[in-house]
Amino acid sequence: MDLSTVPVAEPVNRLIAELEKLPGVGPKTAQRLTYYILRQPESEVRSLAQALLDVKTRVRFCTECFNISEDDLCPICRSPDRDRSVICVMEEPLHVLALERTGRYRGLYHVLHGVISPLNGILPENLRINELVERVKRDAVREVILATNPNLEGDTTASYIFKLLAPLGVKVSRLARGLPSGGELDYADERTMVEALDGRRPLN
Amino acid sequence: MDLSTVPVAEPVNRLIAELEKLPGVGPKTAQRLTYYILRQPESEVRSLAQALLDVKTRVRFCTECFNISEDDLCPICRSPDRDRSVICVMEEPLHVLALERTGRYRGLYHVLHGVISPLNGILPENLRINELVERVKRDAVREVILATNPNLEGDTTASYIFKLLAPLGVKVSRLARGLPSGGELDYADERTMVEALDGRRPLN
Repeated sequence: MDLSTVPVAEPVNRLIAELEKLPGVGPKTAQRLTYYILRQPESEVRSLAQALLDVKTRVRFCTECFNISEDDLCPICRSPDRDRSVICVMEEPLHVLALERTGRYRGLYHVLHGVISPLNGILPENLRINELVERVKRDAVREVILATNPNLEGDTTASYIFKLLAPLGVKVSRLARGLPSGGELDYADERTMVEALDGRRPLN
Repeated sequence: MDLSTVPVAEPVNRLIAELEKLPGVGPKTAQRLTYYILRQPESEVRSLAQALLDVKTRVRFCTECFNISEDDLCPICRSPDRDRSVICVMEEPLHVLALERTGRYRGLYHVLHGVISPLNGILPENLRINELVERVKRDAVREVILATNPNLEGDTTASYIFKLLAPLGVKVSRLARGLPSGGELDYADERTMVEALDGRRPLN
């Protein structure tokens, strides 16, 4: 949809173009958001703009686990209540949130910031894999849970890391695969069904 | 999804909260956008933030037609190429774009900034209806096209305006109703089918 031929105020066109760069935001959504913002009080728009800038200027990565943090060490790495002998390896910070929200995990994290994907030019050295191996060597780590995505790239990355960690004598695990809780069998894809069958557990 | 119990950098939480205020942006989307923004270069984020601010500080409404504008008069009202005897009445600036994009309309516009909706507290006096009547009285307007949405509120608003304009001797029309071009009959709802039937046109 070319708006350049349509006489529209330049700042409006520019905001539409900027919003369209965001993932999942098409031209229609960008237009709707722009006109929504036009109708909002200036104070509201200012706090959104400020929040955007703050996230870039005030947030960095934890020097230990590479999760997002406002300080050198993130709140999880700093916490005295966490079990320092378990590290859960995640692809990205969003996944840390997904596990934290359960409230069931009390160990530490290690964020890789991606997965091995040679086609996209992402090699092991582009991820925080070396830093993970160093942590395991240095600290008294008992178990590493590889929680990369349950897909081809996630599995490949997990295998690669497993080979590096196995010689260190640490226990390495992977999150369980199977049917999603609350789902229905007719919606499960073939691969999930096979994994659910292979991983079936005896009742007693 | 309550993130307040999860140890996340405050600017991240705040941006998620700000993005969630946008229409059509749920908690998941807000999180994804936030982590996307974290990975973008600071310059990119700065231009998005600036575009947001500019739209609020540099854009106002045309004093004539109330479409968005950077100046007192919008480019359409200023243009010597437009037919000043026809005014198309729109609910919002986004709809002006929709018609401009066709390149087929050469008249002027009048943006109401809403529709009559007593349940939502929007009465005729909250819209730019008086200003429309004044324009029709003052200028040599030949035709007013009521292009409010083809739904209950749009129809009600169009009827209301029609009653005000009829005594002024101006031609008042409404956009045609029928089957959407490129659509298929089995997807048309009952109301659209009835309107397509009632509005059928003889071939020759």
